[in-house]
Amino acid sequence: MTDRVVLAYSGGLDTSVGIGWIAEETGAEVVAVAVDVGQGGEDLEQIRKRALACGAVEAVVADARDEFAEQYCLPALQAQALYMDRYPLVSALSRPLIVKHLVGAAKQYGATTVAHGCTGKGNDQVRFEVGIQALAPELRCIAPVRDFAWTREKAIQYAEDHDLPIETSKRSPYSIDQNVWGRAVETGFLEDIWNAPIEDVYAYTRNPAQPREPDEVVVRFENGVPVAIDGHRVTMLQAIQELNARAGAHGIGRLDMVEDRLVGIKSREVYEAPGAIALLTAHQELESVTVERDLARFRRTVSQRWTELVYDGLWFSPLKEALDSFVASSQEHVTGEVRMTLHGGRAVPTGRRSDASLYDFGLATYDAGDTFDQGLAKGFVQLWGLPSKIAASRAQRVSGVDR
Amino acid sequence: MTDRVVLAYSGGLDTSVGIGWIAEETGAEVVAVAVDVGQGGEDLEQIRKRALACGAVEAVVADARDEFAEQYCLPALQAQALYMDRYPLVSALSRPLIVKHLVGAAKQYGATTVAHGCTGKGNDQVRFEVGIQALAPELRCIAPVRDFAWTREKAIQYAEDHDLPIETSKRSPYSIDQNVWGRAVETGFLEDIWNAPIEDVYAYTRNPAQPREPDEVVVRFENGVPVAIDGHRVTMLQAIQELNARAGAHGIGRLDMVEDRLVGIKSREVYEAPGAIALLTAHQELESVTVERDLARFRRTVSQRWTELVYDGLWFSPLKEALDSFVASSQEHVTGEVRMTLHGGRAVPTGRRSDASLYDFGLATYDAGDTFDQGLAKGFVQLWGLPSKIAASRAQRVSGVDR
Amino acid sequence: MTDRVVLAYSGGLDTSVGIGWIAEETGAEVVAVAVDVGQGGEDLEQIRKRALACGAVEAVVADARDEFAEQYCLPALQAQALYMDRYPLVSALSRPLIVKHLVGAAKQYGATTVAHGCTGKGNDQVRFEVGIQALAPELRCIAPVRDFAWTREKAIQYAEDHDLPIETSKRSPYSIDQNVWGRAVETGFLEDIWNAPIEDVYAYTRNPAQPREPDEVVVRFENGVPVAIDGHRVTMLQAIQELNARAGAHGIGRLDMVEDRLVGIKSREVYEAPGAIALLTAHQELESVTVERDLARFRRTVSQRWTELVYDGLWFSPLKEALDSFVASSQEHVTGEVRMTLHGGRAVPTGRRSDASLYDFGLATYDAGDTFDQGLAKGFVQLWGLPSKIAASRAQRVSGVDR
Amino acid sequence: MTDRVVLAYSGGLDTSVGIGWIAEETGAEVVAVAVDVGQGGEDLEQIRKRALACGAVEAVVADARDEFAEQYCLPALQAQALYMDRYPLVSALSRPLIVKHLVGAAKQYGATTVAHGCTGKGNDQVRFEVGIQALAPELRCIAPVRDFAWTREKAIQYAEDHDLPIETSKRSPYSIDQNVWGRAVETGFLEDIWNAPIEDVYAYTRNPAQPREPDEVVVRFENGVPVAIDGHRVTMLQAIQELNARAGAHGIGRLDMVEDRLVGIKSREVYEAPGAIALLTAHQELESVTVERDLARFRRTVSQRWTELVYDGLWFSPLKEALDSFVASSQEHVTGEVRMTLHGGRAVPTGRRSDASLYDFGLATYDAGDTFDQGLAKGFVQLWGLPSKIAASRAQRVSGVDR
Repeated sequence: MTDRVVLAYSGGLDTSVGIGWIAEETGAEVVAVAVDVGQGGEDLEQIRKRALACGAVEAVVADARDEFAEQYCLPALQAQALYMDRYPLVSALSRPLIVKHLVGAAKQYGATTVAHGCTGKGNDQVRFEVGIQALAPELRCIAPVRDFAWTREKAIQYAEDHDLPIETSKRSPYSIDQNVWGRAVETGFLEDIWNAPIEDVYAYTRNPAQPREPDEVVVRFENGVPVAIDGHRVTMLQAIQELNARAGAHGIGRLDMVEDRLVGIKSREVYEAPGAIALLTAHQELESVTVERDLARFRRTVSQRWTELVYDGLWFSPLKEALDSFVASSQEHVTGEVRMTLHGGRAVPTGRRSDASLYDFGLATYDAGDTFDQGLAKGFVQLWGLPSKIAASRAQRVSGVDR
Repeated sequence: MTDRVVLAYSGGLDTSVGIGWIAEETGAEVVAVAVDVGQGGEDLEQIRKRALACGAVEAVVADARDEFAEQYCLPALQAQALYMDRYPLVSALSRPLIVKHLVGAAKQYGATTVAHGCTGKGNDQVRFEVGIQALAPELRCIAPVRDFAWTREKAIQYAEDHDLPIETSKRSPYSIDQNVWGRAVETGFLEDIWNAPIEDVYAYTRNPAQPREPDEVVVRFENGVPVAIDGHRVTMLQAIQELNARAGAHGIGRLDMVEDRLVGIKSREVYEAPGAIALLTAHQELESVTVERDLARFRRTVSQRWTELVYDGLWFSPLKEALDSFVASSQEHVTGEVRMTLHGGRAVPTGRRSDASLYDFGLATYDAGDTFDQGLAKGFVQLWGLPSKIAASRAQRVSGVDR
Repeated sequence: MTDRVVLAYSGGLDTSVGIGWIAEETGAEVVAVAVDVGQGGEDLEQIRKRALACGAVEAVVADARDEFAEQYCLPALQAQALYMDRYPLVSALSRPLIVKHLVGAAKQYGATTVAHGCTGKGNDQVRFEVGIQALAPELRCIAPVRDFAWTREKAIQYAEDHDLPIETSKRSPYSIDQNVWGRAVETGFLEDIWNAPIEDVYAYTRNPAQPREPDEVVVRFENGVPVAIDGHRVTMLQAIQELNARAGAHGIGRLDMVEDRLVGIKSREVYEAPGAIALLTAHQELESVTVERDLARFRRTVSQRWTELVYDGLWFSPLKEALDSFVASSQEHVTGEVRMTLHGGRAVPTGRRSDASLYDFGLATYDAGDTFDQGLAKGFVQLWGLPSKIAASRAQRVSGVDR
Repeated sequence: MTDRVVLAYSGGLDTSVGIGWIAEETGAEVVAVAVDVGQGGEDLEQIRKRALACGAVEAVVADARDEFAEQYCLPALQAQALYMDRYPLVSALSRPLIVKHLVGAAKQYGATTVAHGCTGKGNDQVRFEVGIQALAPELRCIAPVRDFAWTREKAIQYAEDHDLPIETSKRSPYSIDQNVWGRAVETGFLEDIWNAPIEDVYAYTRNPAQPREPDEVVVRFENGVPVAIDGHRVTMLQAIQELNARAGAHGIGRLDMVEDRLVGIKSREVYEAPGAIALLTAHQELESVTVERDLARFRRTVSQRWTELVYDGLWFSPLKEALDSFVASSQEHVTGEVRMTLHGGRAVPTGRRSDASLYDFGLATYDAGDTFDQGLAKGFVQLWGLPSKIAASRAQRVSGVDR
């Protein structure tokens, strides 16, 4: 039987050309797999037809938007995943889902190899290949751009020589990856990190500097899952989509940063993730009210490690699984509502309410109704400070002088 | 010799009354100590005279604004100290400085006891008393409000009975603590956490929703210290003051949160810290460019612990000292400039440049000039993912099925 | 209805006297509760009768040895819980179990208050009272020794005056707490930390310095649970008991340390925990073989926090629950056997085997059969070191000299 | 000018052959560098002559034993560096020192390349190459064994063909790396992890199971540095050497483990490090007495990261430098003496004394002289447990039932 290669297929020039190219280079049949994670653009059926027209023996397309929202974006929301305190892991979340579909297709169609179109200096090659090794250690990976020094110029030439049904003339100055959780943009002039982004790089968000009326939104969570917006029930996908629209209209979620890549270099990245940032803001606010202090403190350590792992391509690792268990436990009481004002690039919480609140008015108030027994504080303060006090006495004793 | 008590004196009603009251209760002479940490308000000389008029045997006033900026705010800036990812430790930073002055006065004037005006349900009692124990374990602490159930009503009565030179009629609905690093506000209607703050609670910042022209600022750091703004040299104090004015004009640094207090309860707090937030933003951005990845990752763990310690009143603890050494080391190369736009409640970095940059255009660019050897990636990816791959093979082997 | 107090009852002098004393002091009826956690000593029925003879209205006794082994010792084993890298949390584990029984009795018999016999300078008062607050926040706690300055001399006098059926003459110089997981000893001469322990303080272990024949044992774990010893199936309780005997015969598990107490002081403690240390050793060894590297590394952070929490009396806290979820996940593949030699105070692993092993002979061997592709290493090494290399270039550039 | 290669030279067969081989393969002149880190064996002068006889243009030998002890072993001691809680980083410590000498020689003799004899599946290749990149990013690295598939058989053939002055006949079944801090052994039969080590693999330690008289030793530290043994002053090197002899005589410091290598595999390793383990034990014990609780707790996190970094070849990284600052600060008061019994494979602390002790007899004792105010405990306990109590009330409220 002829060997088969599953190709992560986008419908664009590079991977369309890749179908024939890989077949020629490897002698294998190519199965194209395209997954909709909310990146928008062309119809899946159109993509499927183009893959076949370009020579694929099979073309699999999947609408994975709900799967992506529920199984990838939601864990990231609950983990409060912000790489370097800012980046909500847009591309890093879609890669493992795509890997799952690639591996599924490889098994279904008897392929021995998986191919992807990533370069050798980015994070995505790691996310694809480590993911594939972790789901199907027997599969081989190839990355034509990296391994065979595939260039865009060669791709255009190939498409024209073979008369492939793909547009080759127009070239965006932007390198873009997008899905429902957000959008990443790289481009030449941003490689000078003193340059500011221009409005033209953004598509999910409007200019936050332009005056417009604020929007007010109430998000309801149950056990850490956003379930309603302004009182109407939503799925996770709908929650992101609605907030992409509403928060995007106010320029929320624009990020411009110098980022530490896994491969050891720093790179300039511009992102926009209006829905993600709005949801993360609301969720964090509700956690402030419903999560106990020590759990909240250690949760930061867990969130950081979770985020690093996912950024670093280790979605399917044993540690990620154990951290997921921790996060799931932490969400038990994250139930309630947060009211936010969306305006001028910011989602600002202005109110929170929850039946599972740990905020106790009686203990907090300084007015009538105060139930806090202040007499307990004296003993607490003295024992709390006792180690420092003993250390201070030691320092005086040892040095012979006061500190 | 008559016993002496050093009192942390603000010049306000409570502590003015406290002078006579403590003298009566304890039979001791009272030494009043007032420290200017940039809280504004009355002239120090006026405060000094009032203390004496209220019966203090000595009244010490100190302009500690530069000391506060350089020895307390700067370490917090370098540690990227944000409690619960948001609160820049405004009050928590001034307490240890005040403690230092109280202890100094106690030694100078031969006092055995230090008194402060904190209640028994807040963090500040802990910060005062643990600090005093750590600097002078032999001193005793008293907190009349907490220990003798001192109330405002009694204070007014006392002031009127004794004809003290202090205003007793006007009562602000707000309980405020402020210094040059920021301002904290508590008030009755905010104790309902569903209520939004009103404009009236703010003093350091203007409404970010009002349209105005953006301001652009360039901050220069040397070894983690802000040394120039828009090209003119500044001290740390001047840097904070200038950015308080400029960032405050755009409503930057307003915070509204439910906070985990050390004494075990959650409380609603509203803060404004325009200069602090603008400086923290610029510093974080410069660190992205100049701090190596592994150091940056572990720095988050160190920052969190530093922040918890300082929030929790352990400024003078041995662990704080060791963490300071770590942070100092991390600042060696944090030198360069960050350009920010101040507008609509946000300080947004738009450019960064540094002779100590770790961003390497040659390694990062996808255009001509690329020096990154993509051939190295394949080996990296495979060994990076090897533990996950071996774990996956094990899972298949053990379960007899694919994962 | 008369108020009722549930008393944690040991059967000894202090708590026997406590029954009548508490009744007199509070006017309440006393319900005595005694729990067998493997501390040995008297028969439970005898204890029950003494409680009634001393005036208890109800006396509840419970054999909780299996419950203790399975629900308290096992989680500690799986968490690799060693406080200060050494102490396997002997007393800290039994307190939450006793709390559970006290709270159960309080509900069953309609008590409003729980009493325990701890002093005010130890950890156990915290473990009892915080546990009770966490299971039944409506219950009140009293600690006669601490709150009413109850002393041993008064207790003897009371027992003699009231002719209670309890021995008052013999007094051990040792203060002991023991259960099946281990034994803690404090005594006057050990309070000088330069003094070595003498043989007389030990009861679970024989002198490791005496020559005897080594013992070899094979422990089998399934999913982190010890299920067989030398091929015969055991319950968790039996596993501890058998290893207490066999490891104790070789002097394994003696600990002599200066310990950081929660109340802020350092204290000298001597422990012996032969079964616990033998099981922890075997379990750690099996984890080395079956747990993936990143998971193993982060597990240390989780173990440390878990251990601190339990030591600090926070067994029933939300964070403990979330950490338990993490640990449970980490145990999925901890299945296999470890062979140890027990001798001279040490349990030394000499062999391990597991169907779930991650040790891959083919990848590890340097002999024939090597399947590791060394060609991958070059790329890995270079990208692994790239951040350090870039940082070094920066240091050269900035300083103008080599580092 | 002819290109030059600096070769890490051991004096053994592989690297002796390497001199000529590298010259032939690369056309460069070879500079041999041998460093004495306490590995024993041949005289340095003899090694120098052999290098020249084998064709090196220059041969540099250095007695770096004190440098190694003071600048590499001491930081590891102070960091309490035990990889996977057990392995004191024997080889991982010597690599960066050797790197420093290689880089120094490269600069002195104008070499452009550094060569080492490591394979492609171990950790040492990483430690060498990452170290070299970090000290001299402009140098190239080659690893003939890995990059040119150099084998032992080819080496013997080459030595015989060229009549090199090196023994080729006897072949040890053991692969050994040793220095004054310890000794690592790998060998074929240990690759079956169910096999126990045999006595023959050990050289630094005698069989701990053989009866002999215990030895008692007192180690004095000043600021974390061991400065005297049994009252006589020692250098760091002497401290290790003396304890290697005395602890080795009692079989202390044998380690047999399955280890997580940086390259992603698990391997079986046997180590012996009598002096290191004895010093680490004494140092840890003194830290228990002199280091404040919070510092001690966070120190574990720092130690773990320090150890991982050094194991992983990142000695010269910015994070390592910052962690060193932390550790240095933590050692300020680690001054005093620890008495240990050396016997039967164990170094057991039996006494500790220190002018800088934080152990306070008055606070710790239960006898006469107790200065601890137990009245403080009640308030402490209640506020300590307040978050758990509030969480418990919430759980009851939300679930409608008791937990």
